[in-house]
Amino acid sequence: MNPFPTSPRIAIVGSGAIGCYYGARLAQHGHDVHFLMRSDHDHVSRHGLDIRSHIGDFHLPADQVHSHTTTADIGPSDLVIIALKTTSNHLLPDLIPPLLHENTAILTLQNGLGNEALLATHFGAQRILGGLCFVCINRLSPGVIDHSAQGLITLGEYDSSDDLQSRPQTIAEAFNAAQIPCKVEPSLALARWRKLVWNIPFNGLSIAAGSLTTEQILASPTLTQLVHDLMLEVIATANALGHPLPESLADEMIANTRNMSAYKTSSLIDHLEGREVEINAIWQEPLRQAQAAGVPVPKLEMLTQLLAGYANLKTTSK
Amino acid sequence: MNPFPTSPRIAIVGSGAIGCYYGARLAQHGHDVHFLMRSDHDHVSRHGLDIRSHIGDFHLPADQVHSHTTTADIGPSDLVIIALKTTSNHLLPDLIPPLLHENTAILTLQNGLGNEALLATHFGAQRILGGLCFVCINRLSPGVIDHSAQGLITLGEYDSSDDLQSRPQTIAEAFNAAQIPCKVEPSLALARWRKLVWNIPFNGLSIAAGSLTTEQILASPTLTQLVHDLMLEVIATANALGHPLPESLADEMIANTRNMSAYKTSSLIDHLEGREVEINAIWQEPLRQAQAAGVPVPKLEMLTQLLAGYANLKTTSK
Repeated sequence: MNPFPTSPRIAIVGSGAIGCYYGARLAQHGHDVHFLMRSDHDHVSRHGLDIRSHIGDFHLPADQVHSHTTTADIGPSDLVIIALKTTSNHLLPDLIPPLLHENTAILTLQNGLGNEALLATHFGAQRILGGLCFVCINRLSPGVIDHSAQGLITLGEYDSSDDLQSRPQTIAEAFNAAQIPCKVEPSLALARWRKLVWNIPFNGLSIAAGSLTTEQILASPTLTQLVHDLMLEVIATANALGHPLPESLADEMIANTRNMSAYKTSSLIDHLEGREVEINAIWQEPLRQAQAAGVPVPKLEMLTQLLAGYANLKTTSK
Repeated sequence: MNPFPTSPRIAIVGSGAIGCYYGARLAQHGHDVHFLMRSDHDHVSRHGLDIRSHIGDFHLPADQVHSHTTTADIGPSDLVIIALKTTSNHLLPDLIPPLLHENTAILTLQNGLGNEALLATHFGAQRILGGLCFVCINRLSPGVIDHSAQGLITLGEYDSSDDLQSRPQTIAEAFNAAQIPCKVEPSLALARWRKLVWNIPFNGLSIAAGSLTTEQILASPTLTQLVHDLMLEVIATANALGHPLPESLADEMIANTRNMSAYKTSSLIDHLEGREVEINAIWQEPLRQAQAAGVPVPKLEMLTQLLAGYANLKTTSK
C-alpha cells in the first residue's frame, strides 16, 4: 500500500460546528476540502464560512468552500472525515461509498463508542481511524461558527494490528500544520474509554439531574458522589475490557472540572434545543459492553434508562 | 389504662389539605376538633372551611372550626393527628408537649418512614400510631380543600407488642362513622413498606425523569423497567427487614397504575410549586435501612442522590 498522501483530498461528512470548523481550518491552509452540507448549503455557497475563533477569526469566501449536497457530487477522496451526529449513523452505509477509492481512509470524529466498529463492518477495518475532539465549538447561524476554547484532536487507528503505522502520523502532521493541534493515540479504544469516564456522568447528569451545568452538578455533594460512582463503573468496565485506567482518574477529572468555568455539555445543549441526544453512542453502547463483560454497572444502567426515558418522551410528544 | 375514648378530643397538627379535610369530616360529624393553623388561621377564623368532595361538598362555618395558632392554646387532647409535612418534623418536639395528657394517643398520617420512630423517641412508643392515606386531596386556596378521589386511611399501632389492641379499632370506628373509610393494619411497618414500593419509584421518577405524570413514566419502556427495578430493590429491603412482600407486587402495582388516569405525584407537585420535597422520609430513611440491612440497592441510592441534588440546587438558588 502506498503511504498516505501528505496533501490528501478531504471530504467532510456532517457539516455542523465540528465539521465546518476543522474543514475550514484545513481549507484555509491550502487543503482540497469538500463539504457535504444539507440545510446550510445555500447560505454557504453564497456567503462562505465565517469562523470566529479564540486563536484567530477568518472568513472563507464562497469560491473557496466546496459545498456539495450529495457525496456522489464530491466523489472519491483520500480522507473522509465524519463529523455527523451519531444519531444519523444509519445514513452512513448510503453516504460513504461514493467517497471511496482503494486507499481512502475514514476518520470519525464522532462521540462515544461503536462508530469505528460500524464503519469497519461496512467498509473494512483497515480504512478506519477514530479521533477525539477536545474543543468548544458552536454553530451560531448558517455558516457562522464560534470556536471558543481548546481545539485538540487525538487520533488513532481502529485496527492497531495492521501495517498502517505511518498513516495517523501523516494525518496528524497535516492537521498540526493547519492550526489544528493533533496527537496520535497509541490506543484509540483506551482514549475513547478515558473520555467516556467524563462524558458518561457529566453529559448524562447535565440532563438527568435537571438541566445543570458542570458547576451546578459539582455544587451538590450528592451529585458529585454520583459522578464519582459512575466514573468508577466506567473505569471498571474499561479495565475489564483490557483498557487500563486507574481509579484515581475519577478524583482527578472531578478536580479538573471544578477548575473549569460553568460548562453546558453538548448533550445538554442538544436536549435544551430539542435535538436528539446521542444516547446510543455515549451510554447504551458502553452499557452493552459492560454487561457483555459481566461488569456490574447499576448506576450506568439507571442513567441510561433515565436518558432513554427522556428520548421516548420527546418522540411521543412530537 | 382506660380504654380509648369513643369520642376523643382531637388536635390536628398541620392544617394542609390532609389535616383540614380529615379534621373537617370529624368536626362535621360532631367531634371536638382543634386545628393548629399558621397561614390560613385568619381566613378560616372568619370564613370557616369549604370542603369540595367527590362524596359530598360541605361548609364548616367559622364558629364550628376551632382554629388555634399555638398548641398551648389547644391544650391536652385525647388524639393528636399529625398531618404536617415531614420536612417540618424538626418542629414536633416543641409543638407536641402542650397537647399531651397521660393517655394521649398520637397518630401520624405523614408520608414515608421514620415518623413514628421519631415521635416514639420523644414521647414514648406506647402513644404512637401511624396511618397511611390513600386519597387525592389538594388545597385550592386558604380554607378551600378539594377532595377529588378515594379517601381510605389504614392505621395501626407503632408498638404492636403492647396491650392497646383495642385503640386502633376504636379510632377506626370513629373515623368510619365520620365518612372516613378506615381499616386497621395488623402490621404498620409492612403497610409502610408496601406503600413505599409505589412511592419510591413513582414519586421519585416523577421528578427525576423530567417532571412526568405516572402515565408518561409508563409510556416509556425503559422507565417502566426502571420502576420495576426500583420496586424489586424496595421489596428485597422489606423482606430483609422481616416485612414479607412478594416480588409479584411490582408487576401488580405497575398494572394498577396503568389503569389510573395520568397522575401527578404529591412529590412532583411539591417540586413544581417550589416546595421542599420529602426526601428524607420517602427515600433517605428507606435507603439507610436498606444499607444497614446490607441489601444492595444501587438504583435507590442513585435516585436518592439525584433527588438530593435537586434539593441542594433549590437551596443554593434561594
